[in-house]
Amino acid sequence: MKLLLKNGFVVNVFTGEIEKQNVLIEDGVITGTGGYDNSDADIVNDVSGKYICPGFIDGHIHIESTMLLPCEFARACISHGTTAVIADPHEIANVCGTDGIRFMLAASENIPMTVYIMLPSCVPATNFDEAGAVLEAEDLNSFYKYPRVLGLGELMNYPAVVSDDEKVMRKIKEAHRSGKIINGHAPKLTGRELDKYIAAGINDDHECCSSDEAIERIRKGQWIMIREGTAARNLIDMLPLFDAPYSHRCILVTDDKHPADIIENGHIDSIIRKAAANGKSTVTGIQMATIQAAQCFGLKGVGAVAPGYAANLLVLDNLDEIKINEVYYYGSKVCENGRVIEFESPVISGPLRESVLSSFRMPVLSADNFMLTPHTGKCRTIGVIPGQLITEELFFDIDFSINNGIDTNRDLLKLAVCERHHNTGHIGLGFIHGIGLKQGAIASSVSHDSHNLIIIGASEEDMAIAGNRIREIGGGNVVVKEGRIIAEMPLPIAGLMSDQSAECAASQNYKVRNAVYEVGVPKDIEPFMNMAFVSLPVIPSLKMTTMGLIDVNRQEIVPLFED
Amino acid sequence: MKLLLKNGFVVNVFTGEIEKQNVLIEDGVITGTGGYDNSDADIVNDVSGKYICPGFIDGHIHIESTMLLPCEFARACISHGTTAVIADPHEIANVCGTDGIRFMLAASENIPMTVYIMLPSCVPATNFDEAGAVLEAEDLNSFYKYPRVLGLGELMNYPAVVSDDEKVMRKIKEAHRSGKIINGHAPKLTGRELDKYIAAGINDDHECCSSDEAIERIRKGQWIMIREGTAARNLIDMLPLFDAPYSHRCILVTDDKHPADIIENGHIDSIIRKAAANGKSTVTGIQMATIQAAQCFGLKGVGAVAPGYAANLLVLDNLDEIKINEVYYYGSKVCENGRVIEFESPVISGPLRESVLSSFRMPVLSADNFMLTPHTGKCRTIGVIPGQLITEELFFDIDFSINNGIDTNRDLLKLAVCERHHNTGHIGLGFIHGIGLKQGAIASSVSHDSHNLIIIGASEEDMAIAGNRIREIGGGNVVVKEGRIIAEMPLPIAGLMSDQSAECAASQNYKVRNAVYEVGVPKDIEPFMNMAFVSLPVIPSLKMTTMGLIDVNRQEIVPLFED
Repeated sequence: MKLLLKNGFVVNVFTGEIEKQNVLIEDGVITGTGGYDNSDADIVNDVSGKYICPGFIDGHIHIESTMLLPCEFARACISHGTTAVIADPHEIANVCGTDGIRFMLAASENIPMTVYIMLPSCVPATNFDEAGAVLEAEDLNSFYKYPRVLGLGELMNYPAVVSDDEKVMRKIKEAHRSGKIINGHAPKLTGRELDKYIAAGINDDHECCSSDEAIERIRKGQWIMIREGTAARNLIDMLPLFDAPYSHRCILVTDDKHPADIIENGHIDSIIRKAAANGKSTVTGIQMATIQAAQCFGLKGVGAVAPGYAANLLVLDNLDEIKINEVYYYGSKVCENGRVIEFESPVISGPLRESVLSSFRMPVLSADNFMLTPHTGKCRTIGVIPGQLITEELFFDIDFSINNGIDTNRDLLKLAVCERHHNTGHIGLGFIHGIGLKQGAIASSVSHDSHNLIIIGASEEDMAIAGNRIREIGGGNVVVKEGRIIAEMPLPIAGLMSDQSAECAASQNYKVRNAVYEVGVPKDIEPFMNMAFVSLPVIPSLKMTTMGLIDVNRQEIVPLFED
Repeated sequence: MKLLLKNGFVVNVFTGEIEKQNVLIEDGVITGTGGYDNSDADIVNDVSGKYICPGFIDGHIHIESTMLLPCEFARACISHGTTAVIADPHEIANVCGTDGIRFMLAASENIPMTVYIMLPSCVPATNFDEAGAVLEAEDLNSFYKYPRVLGLGELMNYPAVVSDDEKVMRKIKEAHRSGKIINGHAPKLTGRELDKYIAAGINDDHECCSSDEAIERIRKGQWIMIREGTAARNLIDMLPLFDAPYSHRCILVTDDKHPADIIENGHIDSIIRKAAANGKSTVTGIQMATIQAAQCFGLKGVGAVAPGYAANLLVLDNLDEIKINEVYYYGSKVCENGRVIEFESPVISGPLRESVLSSFRMPVLSADNFMLTPHTGKCRTIGVIPGQLITEELFFDIDFSINNGIDTNRDLLKLAVCERHHNTGHIGLGFIHGIGLKQGAIASSVSHDSHNLIIIGASEEDMAIAGNRIREIGGGNVVVKEGRIIAEMPLPIAGLMSDQSAECAASQNYKVRNAVYEVGVPKDIEPFMNMAFVSLPVIPSLKMTTMGLIDVNRQEIVPLFED
């Protein structure tokens, strides 16, 4: 089947030029650009006055963070022009190990968007945590043969690279031996340590928060991923990178993106739009999101409107606003008038389905699980800072005579992180300040990076109810008030992803996030966002895992009470 | 061993910036750039006031055309900053088949220059010729496993690609299946046919003679190789490509380069210098010759001064003139004060050596072999155009009563192309005009692309003497006058390469080229250059092979006499 897109203004990502051209497509591939006419094609689509550019590529995303299955993620993003993403299934791998990677590969098969996979490099994130799996080099190696597996995902354990840690270096070596890419993640690393990290063959970085930080890396040969997601938003600080001589070494990524944010604002298109609104060239943004993403990952035959390239194309009503009318994926129209054309979702059955649907292995909880033995001395307490992932280490005197120490007047709530992968019954228990709950409890199975069950409450009974509900539904976010579930968002797939559409997931998520105000949380706090990072012991300062409190800076387990 | 290059102005090929920096090298690899000091290194080389840039890469060369073995080629080019070449052993493969490829791989092992190999894609060049070998896809496949083999060499049989020729498409498919690059060669191809050629996955082109021709290809995704060799010189016409938005898709190549030209003018350095003399940026030239060449071929870890990159570095006294003082190859100094440090030449013994040293399989020649049966009618004659590879088809009346038709007054000489690979005794025989010999004979075993023995003479006896001498010494260029060899350049390796140094080869070549004037050739004709292409039936108009005269435009064998 030969398709001719006629009279469009084609964005040439090799030169940045825009030329009126006809584009001939055969069997999913662009076979010609230039003076073709109706007689060359079976189907002619006259796009006079419209623009044609390559489909967008998100260079780094954790699809699990959208809480959507890959097919639902695709349904949400295709209309925004995304035809490929490079996904690191780091979250599901922390829960389900290699089954999680296999699931994401299977769940993204034959959908109208290419989901390339980077193998999670750091599972678990640290030794101070109990993840669902431990992935060593030998667990990963068998995946390099998959054509969609491009390499080793963000190597956030940069101290291990700098100190030549044997296990991590073996993962790096194996990726290189397979001719693959290694993504970086090394915020603030500079000078000698950065040199050592880059010399190990780390291709890129997506953690830069300033253009100076990025320029140092570009000069040293790394690609820079300009990140603009739901939580981390670096675009404004990175705007200088849209100019020569740096722009050609940058690509665009979202990293983490919530479903409502996709629906309301878009995906990669929204980054290009925002850069343009800030005075930068739309064409430069398109180059970053297409051919440069392909170059960054060594992908051949995608990311350009040129002979031999995949016919992953966007037809835009308007270039400046990236107003997308049609999307073609390997020559098939997958979005028309801004609406995604229906496609079949991959069906996953058998043991793989079982594995991701039965990821909760933990005992039933009772209020007793959250009772602390009264103790004198200063209590080491996690201090949440609104809108930030870092926490403070605070100290409080606890009065155990009332409510086993819970004191909503001083915003001292119980915090529990319950191991949920191996039925160990391990619970890290303590206090948290800065969430603002006046009653009830909130709980979630999205709890980076090990995704144990995290519960915060003003009542141990409600904490047990919240935790048991999540255990019962196999994962999710829950709000409990006066012994009753008042809102829930089921995340049955590994406790991380919904099996619903983006709209439905966004709506459930919205309800859960609003329900927290009914249990007293002030409007300026988004507790689920903070809660998701309270157990991640690679971000300072004080965090809670199933093994207890962790001083992140010292990388040690620390006692609840300072005697 | 840690080496510090201190206080140099480093050319950053990623950004085009020049920064004063210290460069730390460990075990052949750059491990740091920036604030390193003496305490970091075992050896410190203070290069204050000098420039540091990556070693140059020639993106397309036939080493055989230098008439030098790879080690001698390296000795000639290292001082000009060349640390890598991408070589297509097309000439020796036409003589020795896969043994020729194996020989070039072995002969370039462990020399202080990386010789990457592209597999000759078109052996023989056409079906109207008798080469030493026929290379099919299956002959090439086993070579893709060699790390230095980057892909399939210049696919000059572009009509076969455009017409989906099965054998050629199989070669393309196998190269892609192995994840390799395919070099292009398609002069003047444009529009639809160019689209078809590029869509087949042809990476680049080095045959562009105008910037317009090149820009069409850049827009369609090809890399452009700006060629400036000894014969074909395209730089001046390609100067617009040194500017944005095209320069980042171009690299520099020599294709064919003679030893005297290397000695007198240099190699890739001379192209950058010439571009600079014509007002273009030296840094742009360096970018083309380094990181961009690496990108064009998908080479990782070469072509930049950055952590993790091979320490293939040049120390320049002066940037504008590319005055090279030191050259480092994987951290070892291989050139100092402009002099190449001695290294061992690869020793090749056994059957491979035998194969390339005994490439002549043909009977002894006598004057009788060059006698034509008298014939009336117009004689189809090759008309040489000075300084060009294309020829004219001329017609002469021949008077066979004197000298069997040779008529030096009308510059009508005998031309013979003698099959020399398979002992068939085939001789293509006819007349040539435009060489200017008044007596004697000249002969050569460098005769593109099949490299049969080509002889031009004013005397059949001298033609036999010249041809037999070349047969005796296993290849070379010879000038005969009055029954005596007056100059010769032995090319014992496959009849293509000298076993001497570049200086010696250049001197022998000079003597041979001058000796032609003693047999009457006018000073404005360089007969060996013309002779080398008289038997190449892919360049118009009339050519001679062992099978007789070929009308190149019609791609047919044509009779000597028009009846």
